[in-house]
Amino acid sequence: MNFIEQIKQQRLSNNSMVCVGLDPFLDKMPVEFQNSKTGILDFNKAIIDATFDVVCSYKPQFAHYAALGQLDVLKQTIDYIKTKYPQVPVILDSKRGDIGSTADMYAKEAFIQYNADAVTVNPYMGDDTILPFTQYKDKGVVILCRTSNPGAGVIQNIKSDGQTLYEIIAKRARTTWNENKNVMLVVGATVPQEMKSIRSIVGDMEFLVPGLGAQGGDVKAVMEAGLNADNSGLVINSSRAVLYASNQLKDFAEKARLEAISLQAQSNQYKK
Amino acid sequence: MNFIEQIKQQRLSNNSMVCVGLDPFLDKMPVEFQNSKTGILDFNKAIIDATFDVVCSYKPQFAHYAALGQLDVLKQTIDYIKTKYPQVPVILDSKRGDIGSTADMYAKEAFIQYNADAVTVNPYMGDDTILPFTQYKDKGVVILCRTSNPGAGVIQNIKSDGQTLYEIIAKRARTTWNENKNVMLVVGATVPQEMKSIRSIVGDMEFLVPGLGAQGGDVKAVMEAGLNADNSGLVINSSRAVLYASNQLKDFAEKARLEAISLQAQSNQYKK
Repeated sequence: MNFIEQIKQQRLSNNSMVCVGLDPFLDKMPVEFQNSKTGILDFNKAIIDATFDVVCSYKPQFAHYAALGQLDVLKQTIDYIKTKYPQVPVILDSKRGDIGSTADMYAKEAFIQYNADAVTVNPYMGDDTILPFTQYKDKGVVILCRTSNPGAGVIQNIKSDGQTLYEIIAKRARTTWNENKNVMLVVGATVPQEMKSIRSIVGDMEFLVPGLGAQGGDVKAVMEAGLNADNSGLVINSSRAVLYASNQLKDFAEKARLEAISLQAQSNQYKK
Repeated sequence: MNFIEQIKQQRLSNNSMVCVGLDPFLDKMPVEFQNSKTGILDFNKAIIDATFDVVCSYKPQFAHYAALGQLDVLKQTIDYIKTKYPQVPVILDSKRGDIGSTADMYAKEAFIQYNADAVTVNPYMGDDTILPFTQYKDKGVVILCRTSNPGAGVIQNIKSDGQTLYEIIAKRARTTWNENKNVMLVVGATVPQEMKSIRSIVGDMEFLVPGLGAQGGDVKAVMEAGLNADNSGLVINSSRAVLYASNQLKDFAEKARLEAISLQAQSNQYKK
């Protein structure tokens, strides 16, 4: 089963489009974790144990571990999911992109060193920087198309012959990069108009949707703009809102679960 | 002294525009390093000791260490340069790019965890993904503009209102991103026409030029297209041609030095 099939199956079996982003911010965690050597790993394990049956995937963000010099914890976190909940796919969010021979190395980093099921990739450098990832047929390649951040439009919305850059990327993803049916696109929750346009270009390809919560995206708008006719096509990420719903040891895991369930319900209510 | 001044000074004092890319390929090294636990670090140290006085910078490439699970060696390699040859700036080539709060983390990764003097950055996600790097005023931010790989043009050469995407990036680098005078651009040796156009847009900004050797770029064409009137503006990278000039233990370091000196001479002969 390849990554896209795995995502679809997990979305169905847990009845959830929710992806939890595992982005450690030490100072937002219960203080007990801040003062522990194994704090981030223990925190992640508790979050995973509390949410595995209400999500369709996890998305650890590389930089949060790298900045702390704790890439071993990134690896241990993924290992924990793969061992205990192997049905839940893991997207390594590291936004890689480089010339072909180096992209090969980044594919090895994500798929072999970290054993992730998918990795996020930046398309700025073109075709030969994407193909070293997509050749791993069972793995997923999640390509930045229209991102959620406020400055994205300056580059991604420039127009060429009546098409925006993000539309050009979307077309290329459908016609060229998705030959192995293992490509997914990043489309931000903050730009539902753009999401609608991308949906019309790529048919039923899957979207990874960041930008809810702290970034201001709206679930209803996302569902209306991005959902496929069969209620598939969307993986909706939430990081901070779930992870840091409480900073108290006694209830942070329970509150995280409730927050994930709330997003699950909010999104499911807009199914067609 | 900020990174750009450091590069200029080192280029002058060593009379060299050459940057050596520290990209380990185990199977290209002398076999003695392949069978040693400290093989890559020992290899890097020997290359650095053999070239430090004929280069203006080093550029270790992140993925090559990450793919092997040897990021500790990346750190030890940079530490070695910073301790023994602190005058030679180190560009961490990791092509990062993410939303603002995550870009902060990548800046910490490069500038604090790895203690690099500069980092390569991908501009696809726009202004707010660049500024967390450039706010480190003494550090360098090396932004992808027109890359050297064969597939780059598919994206970077698309035209909007008569300007290509790489020209739009170049303009934005000059007018917006370079406020702290610490931005440099990646411009491939394989595209001298594009380099000429970028030079005309950005004045005397520095270029990091990959793509010689294995990728087919030509030194003379690069010098004619990219050099400033005062013979500054170019940092010419060579990785494989220098590192793997010989795979014999008895002469690999000496051959690497000769190769670096050869590129130094080749480029210097085209000075104005």
